[in-house]
Amino acid sequence: MSLKNTHEIDIVRVSSSKIDSVDFDNLTFGTTFTDHMFVCDFREGKWQKAEIKPYAPFLLDPSAKVFHYGQAIFEGMKAYKDESDDVWLFRPDQNFERFNKSAKRMAMPEVDEEIFMSGLHQLIDLEREWVKKGLGNTLYIRPFMIAIGSGVIAAPSTQYRFMIILSPAKSYYSGEVKVIIAEHYSRAANGGIGAAKAAGNYSAQFYPTKLANERGFQQIIWTDDATHTKLEEAGTMNVFFRINDTLYTAPTSERILDGVTRKSLIDLAKRDGIDVAVRPVLVEEIIEAAKDGSLKEIFGAGTAAVVNPIVGFSYQDTYYELPKIENSFALLLKEKLTKIQYKLAEDTFGWTVKI
Amino acid sequence: MSLKNTHEIDIVRVSSSKIDSVDFDNLTFGTTFTDHMFVCDFREGKWQKAEIKPYAPFLLDPSAKVFHYGQAIFEGMKAYKDESDDVWLFRPDQNFERFNKSAKRMAMPEVDEEIFMSGLHQLIDLEREWVKKGLGNTLYIRPFMIAIGSGVIAAPSTQYRFMIILSPAKSYYSGEVKVIIAEHYSRAANGGIGAAKAAGNYSAQFYPTKLANERGFQQIIWTDDATHTKLEEAGTMNVFFRINDTLYTAPTSERILDGVTRKSLIDLAKRDGIDVAVRPVLVEEIIEAAKDGSLKEIFGAGTAAVVNPIVGFSYQDTYYELPKIENSFALLLKEKLTKIQYKLAEDTFGWTVKI
Repeated sequence: MSLKNTHEIDIVRVSSSKIDSVDFDNLTFGTTFTDHMFVCDFREGKWQKAEIKPYAPFLLDPSAKVFHYGQAIFEGMKAYKDESDDVWLFRPDQNFERFNKSAKRMAMPEVDEEIFMSGLHQLIDLEREWVKKGLGNTLYIRPFMIAIGSGVIAAPSTQYRFMIILSPAKSYYSGEVKVIIAEHYSRAANGGIGAAKAAGNYSAQFYPTKLANERGFQQIIWTDDATHTKLEEAGTMNVFFRINDTLYTAPTSERILDGVTRKSLIDLAKRDGIDVAVRPVLVEEIIEAAKDGSLKEIFGAGTAAVVNPIVGFSYQDTYYELPKIENSFALLLKEKLTKIQYKLAEDTFGWTVKI
Repeated sequence: MSLKNTHEIDIVRVSSSKIDSVDFDNLTFGTTFTDHMFVCDFREGKWQKAEIKPYAPFLLDPSAKVFHYGQAIFEGMKAYKDESDDVWLFRPDQNFERFNKSAKRMAMPEVDEEIFMSGLHQLIDLEREWVKKGLGNTLYIRPFMIAIGSGVIAAPSTQYRFMIILSPAKSYYSGEVKVIIAEHYSRAANGGIGAAKAAGNYSAQFYPTKLANERGFQQIIWTDDATHTKLEEAGTMNVFFRINDTLYTAPTSERILDGVTRKSLIDLAKRDGIDVAVRPVLVEEIIEAAKDGSLKEIFGAGTAAVVNPIVGFSYQDTYYELPKIENSFALLLKEKLTKIQYKLAEDTFGWTVKI
């Protein structure tokens, strides 16, 4: 696969890079940004001239729709540098498609593929010094779109800003992750926006997650809001359960995000002979499996963390500790996926794209 | 009731007002703003010095949390001028309480009552020329809070901005309003944020509303997301149904906003001998009532529109027209409420507060 890079972009470079001031060994996820950003505005019914320019704050009216009505979507992607100093993206087509699905659900304009892909290509190309070699070093990529039209009336904006910003990163999660299975709070409604990477889906999780944190748990496994009997996502990630030697994960739906890591892990597992069952996963069967010892692993899957093993979970005030096992599917799949991303293993799927 | 106005606020005035350039007879709702705005930032764990200053755009980092995770809440209120040129607020205590309930649900800091009320008082006092006399003229008030901390990591911000902006307004809705009863899309999940005035709740409605618009309907009556059998809100308003001479409206819940207009109408109706039943309202009973002629009225209730009569609704592709009646409860209650707000009728409830 190769990246469409035919869109003309105005580029204004910084006078001097701040890269030398960055300690790449001590990065806090998502807080350091590269020298430049990509910006393309939508107004009068069309996308305007795209620009790459110095990363900087920008002005918005106090009545900007994004502040009042939350019309905002994003994607999370990563770039990787291989041993030959080539920079690679992982399945950018999937992020692009999902971005436009999110845009549609939030009544925002879809972004042209050429603008999205050329923006990625030219911005990352300009910042390739920021992508460091070595497993675990990545450049986190954040494409996002916000409603910048003004007016405190609850209706879609007519003006939008599509941007891409880049943040050098190490790994996202650290430490042991214990989770609570949600019995009251939910992240998505039937007929709601759970399948969109819409800004409002994330802040909605902060308070329940804070309550979980106060009880000593790092994340929540979200259940369906109507019955709280089906396990759907873990924190901001998709979630997998291993019972004996089969992996289970819920099918995507309008409540569940179609995660790129999730579907890549499913493909990898299937390719390498691990049984994967994509079907609704019930709280009750996980509790039973935990009790009879057949529940071997639970892990989250997402771009930021890749794979996030969970060491135990709480349900109805009972804590279930997961066994420490030798042949962890979570770690095996993480290694296989990561090696493809860093070009250390053959990419039999054609997932990687060179910048 | 009187307004706490003891908080010290730095005031910087505009050099010249733009009020003479505004055509107060032709205002588009929510698009014209007064000369000044109120701003108070939260950082290092506390609210900083409050300011009133010229209305103007402000700078935010591209990674500001409000853009990525939708941590944003608001309130809608109005000020009214009476025949003696006094300016009045309507139940600001209710908006303040709800604002902090929303803040809590969105893991944002609560605003001190003194800051909220003093901000309202001093800003509106400064802009009292913008509040015009006469029924239908109001000053729409938009308190809101956004997460301004930077960083693309899905966790609550540590920095926030609380603002109040003011917009002179005529009435919000115009024309006949036909609605669709939601059979697929939803606005809120059980255990979600439906009861909060969170930004993300509003943009989530834009796409389904656009689909309704394309079919010739202005709004959607939202139903519970699990079964779509209970009628919950209309567009961005609470909703009332009149069957024979009784008004029905759903109880507030974590899916339904605790509307100030809603509860004021309930109190007014009860005071004046109209039967009100606050209980779940089923789609099926409304369809039956429409068929047998006992369904007399449906109307939305909210600050912007006050009361918004609905002329008919569609359900399962059948359109039900409501009868044209003489003694409309919607119009009667709207008149009673409006007269209290404009100080044209006695405020037996103590709802109005002088600036």
